[in-house]
Amino acid sequence: MTSTSRIEELLTRFIAHDRIALARLITMVENRADGVGVIMERVYPMAGRAVVIGITGAPGAGKSTLVNRLIAHLRQRGQRVAVLAIDPSSPFSGGAVLGDRVRMTDHYRDDAVYIRSVSSRGSHGGLSRAAREIVHVLDAFGHDVVIIETVGVGQTELGVMDLADTTVVVTVPEGGDGVQAMKAGLNEIADVFVVNKADRAGADRIKAELELEVHLRNSAGWHPPVIMTEATADRGVDALLEAIDRHAEYLAETRDPARLAERRVHEFVDIVTAEIERRTARALGDGAAPELLDRIRTGELNPYRAARELMEHPGTLVRVLATPAHTPVPGDARQQERS
Amino acid sequence: MTSTSRIEELLTRFIAHDRIALARLITMVENRADGVGVIMERVYPMAGRAVVIGITGAPGAGKSTLVNRLIAHLRQRGQRVAVLAIDPSSPFSGGAVLGDRVRMTDHYRDDAVYIRSVSSRGSHGGLSRAAREIVHVLDAFGHDVVIIETVGVGQTELGVMDLADTTVVVTVPEGGDGVQAMKAGLNEIADVFVVNKADRAGADRIKAELELEVHLRNSAGWHPPVIMTEATADRGVDALLEAIDRHAEYLAETRDPARLAERRVHEFVDIVTAEIERRTARALGDGAAPELLDRIRTGELNPYRAARELMEHPGTLVRVLATPAHTPVPGDARQQERS
Repeated sequence: MTSTSRIEELLTRFIAHDRIALARLITMVENRADGVGVIMERVYPMAGRAVVIGITGAPGAGKSTLVNRLIAHLRQRGQRVAVLAIDPSSPFSGGAVLGDRVRMTDHYRDDAVYIRSVSSRGSHGGLSRAAREIVHVLDAFGHDVVIIETVGVGQTELGVMDLADTTVVVTVPEGGDGVQAMKAGLNEIADVFVVNKADRAGADRIKAELELEVHLRNSAGWHPPVIMTEATADRGVDALLEAIDRHAEYLAETRDPARLAERRVHEFVDIVTAEIERRTARALGDGAAPELLDRIRTGELNPYRAARELMEHPGTLVRVLATPAHTPVPGDARQQERS
Repeated sequence: MTSTSRIEELLTRFIAHDRIALARLITMVENRADGVGVIMERVYPMAGRAVVIGITGAPGAGKSTLVNRLIAHLRQRGQRVAVLAIDPSSPFSGGAVLGDRVRMTDHYRDDAVYIRSVSSRGSHGGLSRAAREIVHVLDAFGHDVVIIETVGVGQTELGVMDLADTTVVVTVPEGGDGVQAMKAGLNEIADVFVVNKADRAGADRIKAELELEVHLRNSAGWHPPVIMTEATADRGVDALLEAIDRHAEYLAETRDPARLAERRVHEFVDIVTAEIERRTARALGDGAAPELLDRIRTGELNPYRAARELMEHPGTLVRVLATPAHTPVPGDARQQERS
């Protein structure tokens, strides 16, 4: 349990640019700890200035190396950079398994670079929310650029890309059938394509394919450029940054205030439903409807019928919702232990 | 809008083994249509007899071919088989992109085989719930075996594997770095390992690695066997089925009634929170708190503070929750259109 005064202390240190406070607050957000609402209410008004870049693509496409190079180039411009890496890691250990993450340690001595991995597993359903909130926290801390890196397979991973202003899809010449399958979903969300390992055979062919695809979309507005890179040799990274900048300009020129308003409402609805979900699960776990639960346990009452009965008599729910969720919700025990 | 009498008609035809009614009911469940609660309340008591087998592994591991062979062997035993394939398909088209799905058309004339693809994209957050309900529907229809096939990357895809009694993780000898990364998360959920394309170089090495890993777990209870298959040549499929059968026997011997009871409660909590989420999103979309939403739209009020204000005055919420969700929730428009 984290007390309000502890949160206040962390927030004060956060505002004073204490990186340890930043790390602790992110851990609380990741673990859906008590007090996340308070943290976010305070952090949110400080956020909104960072450019958010999403980098996605199949495993082995060289995303981490590319991100490493992007950090170096952004630092040369004097920009503060944060990276949020979503790892397809073990649901049990909660740790990152991609060895290449260590490459990013190039920047570990640089106070203007902050790198954080979170696991996409073991956080059933909560990752998209947590990722959005972590991006707000990194933004509020004063980072000019927040890079979200994720393996581009799966519904949650794709959802995370919604957070990016500019989405970069990284592909490689030798992408086999698996990569082809992934591409089909990813191409549609790309604002910029990268063909990494562009020195390998087939790079020109895949570039032409992607350009044809962009051409065939035949839509007004932004046409995703295809950038050739060799991240390991630091080739093409300037061109990539230039493409990202051009996309940012395009976004600024075509910005729609109504879209921003709807994004805020969407976020609000999401926060409210998450809190209600939390309170409901907790109240039921605490025994808010014991007779109902007993009948479900024995199999006497089927869970769908029980849900209907509960919804038809919302008296219990009203009691439930009037109480803040201060205890872990059922099934969240493992998450809490890690905090 | 689907009327109650229409649902009743579909359920009557479903009970009479009408495959078109089965398909329509699954579509309603997939699209979170109105009436899903009613459908599930009726279907649930008919389910619970099928063996649920999860097949997962990296793209290109040959899962679809293997599933195709499994179907043939299960049919030889006289068992009725359903396949639920979770496709990492486009978030925009909603269609399946894996061409190899068509291989399963071998069985399209067989009334005792039912194959259904659902997209893992475009259904943010709802897939795990929908998949569980579709498994119940396939089970209730009288299938003896329900196979869930999914690309094993991503949080949601992993969540779907929770539905399986026996989880089969398929790997291949030439799995590169990407596959290695995926493996790390997948291995821990495997009840049975398959090394497919076992005629290729490196098959023995990967078999030995997996067996060593199983050995190092050093746990009491079930030790996942490693089965070599060549699905395209129908080799090893009998051995795989035998391993699945042995795991089913192991589960039957060690069945814990308390676990089953908790599974039922978990499902109930999930159904209730989903319904509350639906009602809340709908009510807010319908203008349940217009002044609050306006202040959020303009940016005057930050969404986290607004959420706290709403939760502190639950009067609005009580009104919200007393009304069933009969209209689409905001952001669900695309889903509804497809139904």
